[in-house]
Amino acid sequence: MKLNVGCDITVRAESRCPIVAMLRPRSGLAQWLSSETYVFDPWVPTTEYVDTFGNLCQRMVVPAGEMRIRVEAVVETEDVLAVAPSASQSAVEQLPDDVLQFLLPSRYCPSDTMESRALEIAGAHAPGYPQVEAIRAWIQQHIEYRHGASDASTDATDTLDGGSGVCRDFAHVGIALVRSLKIPARMVVGYLHGLEPMDLHAWFEAWIDGRWYTFDATQAAPRGGRAVLAYGRDAADVAFISNYGPLETTRMTVWADIAPLPAEPFATSP
Amino acid sequence: MKLNVGCDITVRAESRCPIVAMLRPRSGLAQWLSSETYVFDPWVPTTEYVDTFGNLCQRMVVPAGEMRIRVEAVVETEDVLAVAPSASQSAVEQLPDDVLQFLLPSRYCPSDTMESRALEIAGAHAPGYPQVEAIRAWIQQHIEYRHGASDASTDATDTLDGGSGVCRDFAHVGIALVRSLKIPARMVVGYLHGLEPMDLHAWFEAWIDGRWYTFDATQAAPRGGRAVLAYGRDAADVAFISNYGPLETTRMTVWADIAPLPAEPFATSP
Amino acid sequence: MKLNVGCDITVRAESRCPIVAMLRPRSGLAQWLSSETYVFDPWVPTTEYVDTFGNLCQRMVVPAGEMRIRVEAVVETEDVLAVAPSASQSAVEQLPDDVLQFLLPSRYCPSDTMESRALEIAGAHAPGYPQVEAIRAWIQQHIEYRHGASDASTDATDTLDGGSGVCRDFAHVGIALVRSLKIPARMVVGYLHGLEPMDLHAWFEAWIDGRWYTFDATQAAPRGGRAVLAYGRDAADVAFISNYGPLETTRMTVWADIAPLPAEPFATSP
Amino acid sequence: MKLNVGCDITVRAESRCPIVAMLRPRSGLAQWLSSETYVFDPWVPTTEYVDTFGNLCQRMVVPAGEMRIRVEAVVETEDVLAVAPSASQSAVEQLPDDVLQFLLPSRYCPSDTMESRALEIAGAHAPGYPQVEAIRAWIQQHIEYRHGASDASTDATDTLDGGSGVCRDFAHVGIALVRSLKIPARMVVGYLHGLEPMDLHAWFEAWIDGRWYTFDATQAAPRGGRAVLAYGRDAADVAFISNYGPLETTRMTVWADIAPLPAEPFATSP
Repeated sequence: MKLNVGCDITVRAESRCPIVAMLRPRSGLAQWLSSETYVFDPWVPTTEYVDTFGNLCQRMVVPAGEMRIRVEAVVETEDVLAVAPSASQSAVEQLPDDVLQFLLPSRYCPSDTMESRALEIAGAHAPGYPQVEAIRAWIQQHIEYRHGASDASTDATDTLDGGSGVCRDFAHVGIALVRSLKIPARMVVGYLHGLEPMDLHAWFEAWIDGRWYTFDATQAAPRGGRAVLAYGRDAADVAFISNYGPLETTRMTVWADIAPLPAEPFATSP
Repeated sequence: MKLNVGCDITVRAESRCPIVAMLRPRSGLAQWLSSETYVFDPWVPTTEYVDTFGNLCQRMVVPAGEMRIRVEAVVETEDVLAVAPSASQSAVEQLPDDVLQFLLPSRYCPSDTMESRALEIAGAHAPGYPQVEAIRAWIQQHIEYRHGASDASTDATDTLDGGSGVCRDFAHVGIALVRSLKIPARMVVGYLHGLEPMDLHAWFEAWIDGRWYTFDATQAAPRGGRAVLAYGRDAADVAFISNYGPLETTRMTVWADIAPLPAEPFATSP
Repeated sequence: MKLNVGCDITVRAESRCPIVAMLRPRSGLAQWLSSETYVFDPWVPTTEYVDTFGNLCQRMVVPAGEMRIRVEAVVETEDVLAVAPSASQSAVEQLPDDVLQFLLPSRYCPSDTMESRALEIAGAHAPGYPQVEAIRAWIQQHIEYRHGASDASTDATDTLDGGSGVCRDFAHVGIALVRSLKIPARMVVGYLHGLEPMDLHAWFEAWIDGRWYTFDATQAAPRGGRAVLAYGRDAADVAFISNYGPLETTRMTVWADIAPLPAEPFATSP
Repeated sequence: MKLNVGCDITVRAESRCPIVAMLRPRSGLAQWLSSETYVFDPWVPTTEYVDTFGNLCQRMVVPAGEMRIRVEAVVETEDVLAVAPSASQSAVEQLPDDVLQFLLPSRYCPSDTMESRALEIAGAHAPGYPQVEAIRAWIQQHIEYRHGASDASTDATDTLDGGSGVCRDFAHVGIALVRSLKIPARMVVGYLHGLEPMDLHAWFEAWIDGRWYTFDATQAAPRGGRAVLAYGRDAADVAFISNYGPLETTRMTVWADIAPLPAEPFATSP
């Protein structure tokens, strides 16, 4: 399916504030970028690099005052998520070298403390997809989706204790529990078509039987229509804006719509 | 300055032909991508990766028959090239680790055989920018720009011997001579506003006094208005399409125009 | 100075246990490896890769029973640590791309919660080296070095609250506080000549005025004689052994001695 | 089998000469490093980095006069080379991203000009291992091993035309022919136990049916006992010393012996 995704953000800084943004999606295995725009006003010199996870990162300094950033992309992505109810856990010694880092605990996913909890939830299920799905479903049923229950310092333990959170917290709980079972898990941020209310979204992926599978504990059932902005160990790695100074988001609009079929796909731009 | 650059290519394959394309520009130090489109017909599954030079590479299999690929980008780039007539050569031991590879000979730039030739041309100039500029100017004055004088196997020695070539050959001669003087040099392919006749273009960069500078031996004077598609050791690394099977380009249009000022930069797409 | 560093570890596994070890030092800017051995018994097939931080990582599966691993290296390293009492903080926008990740919070260094604490401790000092040194000295004076006060899940907040810990905890507190001031900081594990009692050691580095400086909150004064095993965001990244299954260390000896001058440095091995 | 490999090199420079050496082997899939020494005299500050092929590279400046470098390693490696007479060619679209670069022509392997020659030699054989082996055997039978027939600028075309060369030339011919058939091939330099006369050696690997296989056109039959120093596209990438200034090798001894069984593998060094 073809999605038109994007967001329009206005930030305000008291004084010049360096930021690193992760707002440009990349084509990869999961999606193809047909088009994309990335504009901001006022204009400031901006550079871009690829981080260790393969994400495109934009560096700029927001000047004192307001700055508006608008990004938009048309992305070809899967309608239907791949599911594999019988896929087995990959043995640790079989994992690709670059997947190993997703077994390690991280800022918001202290998986080193989670094993007994994970076994309570998923121990009765077969190692691999069934365990991860059991964890995902448990979160969906037992953690309440509620704004204001968490902030930028809430980790998976806090959310398990508090019993509520938002998409990022759901993902952190999932990642922490899954990693504790020696299954690699990573954070994904991006867009989900049909999300209510529409916003930037977060979910997680787990490496099972030789590939990444998508899991989203905020949803009752597997659901395609996703466009990825960035991958990381947890939210610390994939903030859509990391600001190194005070910065206020004064306005933000997000969309993830079915892209209209172009009358003429090869039309010269006006 | 803001350029609208792009190309529209039709290829024909007798039978399915795997290709690697390098047609998606990246933001970096030299340019900022405001928008971009990458469409092709018929649709085939396509993946993308970052090569060891940092270029985005698209992998697909062209099916038997015709395929049309159209890419377009709006790029913020420099009007005027940086020049530094007095910049000194960086000592080899001061070069960053990742710049060292651009001292090595490569397929089309056998710099290991070029030192005496380079000294004839540039030996009277100060090491660094003056030597590179002397080489660039010498090529511009002594090599004739002529289509048909070279093909995909022509290297810098062939061009020096034959006395004529196209932009890619000019760049190869420049790179080979410059490297022989222990100055790192790399190939750049992309777009040049105002090029006559318009086409995809090639030039080179040399690392002098701690940064890359742009040199273009096809031009009488330094000239901005460039949009970069890819960097590499020579043309072998940066083919806009590397095809692994017979593939014919049946049509190709290239443009690099001043981008019209948008009435409303943040307009929602139609 | 030339150090002979090494460790001799015996581990015991009930059943086969995959591990990732980081026990092979690398030459870099800070040290030169003159010689090195890495032996283990029983022999098992072992591979090695470079992680995203540049560390050499060894992958093997410890079979059921005991395994002995002995590593040793002769390392040329600095007698005296570089100090720079007047070095200024690098502005975030001036940091190299690959240093930015060391500003992010991590598993044991929740720097997102530490800014006010860091300002209490170091706010009166000039940004840069003076602030980092103030933090280091504060830890050295206010945190009690005590075994048993912490475990593998103790983070910098726990240590600040509890008031005691070991070298790894001291480093985590330092890193967390320093990062909260927008100064990049990273974990280092390795050997320190003269450490009492001798053991594998941990300290931290901070990026100030364009380079990494070493800080060790367990020591009263700057002290050279260090050999680095690995760099990372915190202890999660640089465990000398990450085991993915139960594994007990039954014996461990560590040494970091002045290397004897060889009678004949180029002697053929016996 | 366990090999004790090494070389002892004396170089002489008229004036200080920056070099990049590739003399430190790495553990990987093909070998395990049990021990290693890397000493030189006089002492000069030396750094080390990992290049884009994963090789460890040592940077130093040889001072005016003589310098001696001695490296030695004990390497666990395969007695017997893996052969796979029926392994099929991997389709280009199935190649891992990082293997694609080994399809490109390079300085000494102008594979873009070799396809008809490769088909003459190997066209009657099945694509994959049989074709590569046919090429290897053809080189072994038709190119004469002769010192002095080639120099640092000799490429695969020169060697095919001249009909003689040394191990590096044999490898270049093999790589160039193999790549022209759309089979990835890379250069390997290292040690071969039993080589006559003993010297640093070069051979090549080809990617067939999902993995690298070793081919050595200087040998009549597959032969194990190899220790790898470096991988690259061709000799340009893997010079054991790249010197950026005049440098003469005045003495060089190489060895690759069966390592004696240590009386006590965990013995403390004297």
